[in-house]
Amino acid sequence: MTNSPTDLKLTAQQVEDLIHLGFAAKKKILAVEEVGLGFVRTRLLYRESMLRPGKVLSGPAMFTAADLAMYALVLSHVGPELMAVTSNLNMNFLAKAKPGDIIGQGRMLKLGRRLAVMETSLYSSAEPETLVAHVTGSYALPMKA
Amino acid sequence: MTNSPTDLKLTAQQVEDLIHLGFAAKKKILAVEEVGLGFVRTRLLYRESMLRPGKVLSGPAMFTAADLAMYALVLSHVGPELMAVTSNLNMNFLAKAKPGDIIGQGRMLKLGRRLAVMETSLYSSAEPETLVAHVTGSYALPMKA
Amino acid sequence: MTNSPTDLKLTAQQVEDLIHLGFAAKKKILAVEEVGLGFVRTRLLYRESMLRPGKVLSGPAMFTAADLAMYALVLSHVGPELMAVTSNLNMNFLAKAKPGDIIGQGRMLKLGRRLAVMETSLYSSAEPETLVAHVTGSYALPMKA
Amino acid sequence: MTNSPTDLKLTAQQVEDLIHLGFAAKKKILAVEEVGLGFVRTRLLYRESMLRPGKVLSGPAMFTAADLAMYALVLSHVGPELMAVTSNLNMNFLAKAKPGDIIGQGRMLKLGRRLAVMETSLYSSAEPETLVAHVTGSYALPMKA
Repeated sequence: MTNSPTDLKLTAQQVEDLIHLGFAAKKKILAVEEVGLGFVRTRLLYRESMLRPGKVLSGPAMFTAADLAMYALVLSHVGPELMAVTSNLNMNFLAKAKPGDIIGQGRMLKLGRRLAVMETSLYSSAEPETLVAHVTGSYALPMKA
Repeated sequence: MTNSPTDLKLTAQQVEDLIHLGFAAKKKILAVEEVGLGFVRTRLLYRESMLRPGKVLSGPAMFTAADLAMYALVLSHVGPELMAVTSNLNMNFLAKAKPGDIIGQGRMLKLGRRLAVMETSLYSSAEPETLVAHVTGSYALPMKA
Repeated sequence: MTNSPTDLKLTAQQVEDLIHLGFAAKKKILAVEEVGLGFVRTRLLYRESMLRPGKVLSGPAMFTAADLAMYALVLSHVGPELMAVTSNLNMNFLAKAKPGDIIGQGRMLKLGRRLAVMETSLYSSAEPETLVAHVTGSYALPMKA
Repeated sequence: MTNSPTDLKLTAQQVEDLIHLGFAAKKKILAVEEVGLGFVRTRLLYRESMLRPGKVLSGPAMFTAADLAMYALVLSHVGPELMAVTSNLNMNFLAKAKPGDIIGQGRMLKLGRRLAVMETSLYSSAEPETLVAHVTGSYALPMKA
């Protein structure tokens, strides 16, 4: 396929470590469970601050889960030298999300030289059969020096 | 899954006929090749008016293909009584599309009482391995009387 | 204009109080600075947790600011009885946002019976001339009993 | 403002002529009525093929009007050397559009080196007070040689 990724630059563990380093995270916030060609599965670990009134996962928590999933997907395919920047994010909220980890299944739609376009499906670990949000995103890839 | 479709109301042929009737189309413009639970595959037949300068399929042609795919998906799952209306369409253009039929693979993300949310992947029959556009859309479903 | 709001149901102060009540917020997180017909201006107060590496305002903070601005806009025009639910959010990130309050200028595009569609422009108080993100959103409005 | 356009490269008439040339249009399809710093107003001329059943302007016609408005906006600010390519288009359909010219009011949100982000409000000349669709779009700008 044109514009498809052809190889992986980093393992799941390397991606996870890089993200924690980048955020100077003192404790684990995210697990990168699997990376494959054009694919990633991540898990944003549940914290109470992710709830909003009504005891459902909040919009900002969903945003964070989707953005990190797509960032992990870029990182694994492009490597650590380039800092991808979120350019566009389109989120459809589909169902109330019960408290739990937010699982993101990301898929690369296009990996160009300047833009990566991806989609992510979000699930709560408390009800893993229910698609709670669907997100597409574009990330600008800085030029190599 | 919550909000998932549980049965089909129409066959592929019925959906195709309804669309042609609705548009008072004198000749065939669209083939509905397959409908399944939460799934549809359509084919917008190539006409020269779908080309733009540079001999690639135009944006409006892509829009038409995506909108018809999602309309066919709603129609097959909701039946002919309700007139769904496009509410939001978000399109990511991924690659130049060579002249050919535009194949749409639609998937239902949510079928609620008032809103259907779908995604569609578009391909040109001239290069069926290349994802040329990815589209998500929301359709408002009118109330039953 | 069809589908335009014709009157306000709540003052800026009432909207602000309702949001703080709804989130059981112990301290002020948001100021609703102005509400007008089809318009709102809000200010998400700066907290250090809104920063990401590189000392810029984070994506989730922007999401929160946009979502609260649009929620305030709905609330002021629809009143407190109805609980609007975010259905779609499309965000374009335009510039790095320096640390500061996030100012949201929301505008109603359509206030229908079942759906409110809005846009919000986001600015940082540290550089109030620079549009840092532009967001459009749809909110589902539950039926009145 | 960072990333804001600072000057115009072409007049309204030049933009209109370039678009007609580019599409090898035998008759006038579009009027570029006004270009200003960060602003454009265009008019897609009514043709019967823009109608869909129910005698309202079709989705593809709206798409065309929005895409041309944003293309005109880029062209006027970037000049004729660069061929901008639509990357993302997000459309919210707000009201039924009565038969007429489709007026587009485009506004530049960001003009970067590699990406232009814009919004367009669409109106029908048959009912010029009613906002019928709101569109945001991103266009990739090719590198200069």
